[in-house]
Amino acid sequence: MRGVVLHGPGDVRVEDRPDPRIVQPTDAIIRVTAACVCGSDLWPYRGVEKSDGPVPMGHEYVGVVEQIGDQVETIKVGDFVVGSFFASDNACEICRAGYQSRCVHAELIGAIGTQAQHARIPLADGTLVATPGMPDADLVPSLLTASDVLGTGWFGAVAAEAGPGKTVAVVGDGAVGLLAVLAARQLGAERVVVFSRHADRQKLATEYGATDILTERGDQGVARLKELTGGLGAHSVIEAVGTQESMMQAIRSTRPGGHVGYVGVAHGVELPGEELFFSGVHLHGGPAPVRRFLPQLIDLIWHRTIDPGKVFDLELPLEGAAEGYRAMDERRAIKTLLRP
Amino acid sequence: MRGVVLHGPGDVRVEDRPDPRIVQPTDAIIRVTAACVCGSDLWPYRGVEKSDGPVPMGHEYVGVVEQIGDQVETIKVGDFVVGSFFASDNACEICRAGYQSRCVHAELIGAIGTQAQHARIPLADGTLVATPGMPDADLVPSLLTASDVLGTGWFGAVAAEAGPGKTVAVVGDGAVGLLAVLAARQLGAERVVVFSRHADRQKLATEYGATDILTERGDQGVARLKELTGGLGAHSVIEAVGTQESMMQAIRSTRPGGHVGYVGVAHGVELPGEELFFSGVHLHGGPAPVRRFLPQLIDLIWHRTIDPGKVFDLELPLEGAAEGYRAMDERRAIKTLLRP
Repeated sequence: MRGVVLHGPGDVRVEDRPDPRIVQPTDAIIRVTAACVCGSDLWPYRGVEKSDGPVPMGHEYVGVVEQIGDQVETIKVGDFVVGSFFASDNACEICRAGYQSRCVHAELIGAIGTQAQHARIPLADGTLVATPGMPDADLVPSLLTASDVLGTGWFGAVAAEAGPGKTVAVVGDGAVGLLAVLAARQLGAERVVVFSRHADRQKLATEYGATDILTERGDQGVARLKELTGGLGAHSVIEAVGTQESMMQAIRSTRPGGHVGYVGVAHGVELPGEELFFSGVHLHGGPAPVRRFLPQLIDLIWHRTIDPGKVFDLELPLEGAAEGYRAMDERRAIKTLLRP
Repeated sequence: MRGVVLHGPGDVRVEDRPDPRIVQPTDAIIRVTAACVCGSDLWPYRGVEKSDGPVPMGHEYVGVVEQIGDQVETIKVGDFVVGSFFASDNACEICRAGYQSRCVHAELIGAIGTQAQHARIPLADGTLVATPGMPDADLVPSLLTASDVLGTGWFGAVAAEAGPGKTVAVVGDGAVGLLAVLAARQLGAERVVVFSRHADRQKLATEYGATDILTERGDQGVARLKELTGGLGAHSVIEAVGTQESMMQAIRSTRPGGHVGYVGVAHGVELPGEELFFSGVHLHGGPAPVRRFLPQLIDLIWHRTIDPGKVFDLELPLEGAAEGYRAMDERRAIKTLLRP
C-alpha cells in the first residue's frame, strides 16, 4: 500500500509500505478513507522532535473495516468507523474514569501511521466507534476531526470547565484552538475570546462562535483580556499551542480559582512553581481522551449540529502529502485533509 | 503591647510593639487569645525567604473583638472570632466563587503579625467568623487551627477531590499534612496513605484516620504507593511541603485523570511541562481560601466531631516564642501554640 513516511526534517515522502495485517486477535484492519496532518506532526517535520530513521506518519483517521481479529466482538467488517489517536481497551479502571488516552493497555496510533491506504487498529472494540451508517460524503471531513483535532479542542474546553455564564479564552488559533471555540460554545459559554492575528482564522473563529478577538499576545494579550473581564481574567482558558509563552499566557489570563485546559503538546515548557501556586488556577490537560467524547461528537456531526470539518482548508490526494505538510508549516493552510 | 519580631535568620525576639488601632472603618481590633507558629514561618526563619530588616511575625489567630470601625456591621465587640490569614471582603466575584485568599481587596495578615497581644484585622466583616459563644478552653487550640493549618489541609483535600471510594495519598507529615489526613477522612475517603518517617507523626496520622503509612520517599515512595493501588497510583494526592521533590512525588503518585491538591508554599519549584502534560493529572492549589471553609470547620470543632488541636505538641507563653520556633525548626515539635 501507499503511505506517508518522514525521512528527516522537511522530508515527507509517499512510499510503498507493507500492507498491515492482523497481529493481535483484538485488532482490526481498516481502509482509510480520509486522514490528515496534525499540528503535532509539525514538531518532527520541523526537527524540534528528533527521530531515528524514517517514520510512518499520521494518527487521525476514518475508514471502513475490512478485517477483524478473532476476539473483536462489537466492530464488524463493513462498519464506517472513527477512532482515537490512542488505542484503548475502554474497559480498565482508567478508561472507565474517562482517561482512555492513558488506558493501562494504551497504544499510540502514531506508531502505526494512518496517512496511508490501510491501517491496523489495535483494541478495535475499545478504540473504534461505528457511525449509524455510511456517512454522506460531506460529513466525512467533520467525522475525521473527531479522531483528534475536535476531540482535543473539546477536551480542552471540558478541562477548562467551559460552561454557561462563563467567559472562555482560547490561546492558539490553529485547528485545535478554533475547534475549542466551537466546543466552548456548544458547552454553553457566554463569551468566547480568541487570541488571533490571522484574518482567515479570525473569520472561522467568529463562525464557530467567538465573541471577541484579541490580536495582542503574551502579557499584552493578558492585559487586554483583563480589560474585557473587569480586571479578573477569564473563568476558563484553553491552551492549544504548547510553548512556554502560550502556557504562561494561558495561566495569567485565568482568574484565581479559574480553570486552564491545556492541550497543546508541551515542548520545552517549565512552569514556575511560585507563580503557579499564587495564581490559584486549576490546571488540567494532556493527550485528549478522545474516546470519551466520540459517541457524543459523532452524534452532533451526524445531525449536522456542528460543522468542524470547516477547519480543512486544503484537500489533497495522499500522493500530495508533502505539499500538505509544507502548506501547514508555512501557515498557508490551517489543516490539510489527505485522501488515500 | 508585646509581639514577636524576626530580626534575621534564627533571630526571633519578643518586643514592645505599638498597640494596633483602627485605620480603616472596616477594621476590627482583637485581643489575641492564642496564636501559633506556621510551617511557612520557618522559610524566613531559615533565611530561605529574605526580608529587609525586622518583621512582625504570625498570621494565625483567634481572639476576642475589642474595638470595631464605623463600617463594621456583623462582627461585634466581645465576639470570639476566628479569621483567615488573608483578609477578604467576602463579597467580590472572586470571594463568591470561593477564592477569598485572592479577594480583589485581599490583605495578607502576615504583614500585621498576630504573634502578639493584639492585632488589627482588616475587612472584619468579611474576614472574621464569630463562634456561637465563648468557647470552652479545650476548644481554643482546635479553633486556632481553623485559621490556617486546618483550613489549608482541608483545602488541599478539597483541591485533590478527596471523597468516597477514593484512595488519597498525603505527601508531607507536618501539621498541614496531618490535618489533610483528617480532612480526607471527613470528606469520605476510603483509604488514606501518608508518607512519614517520624513515629510521633505516624501515630497522629493514624489517629486522624490514615490507613497506610509509607516510609519511602521520592520515586521509591511512588513505587510503593503504586504497589498499593494496583499499579495505578492514588486518585487524590495532597502535597503539603512545597519543594521540587515533594511536588514531583505528588504528581507521580497520582493516577491519570486523578487530582493533585498542593498547599505547601512552593519554593524553587519548576514543573517540567512535558511530564506534567503526559501525566494527565489535575493540579490545583495555592494559598488556601480558608474563609470558604471557616463556618463548616468551626461547626465541626464546636460539636467535637474533629479534634485538630492535637497537632499542637508544644505550648508556650508568647515570651517563649524563640524556643517555639527552634523546636519546630529542629523538628522536636510538630506545631507550637503561643499564648499572648
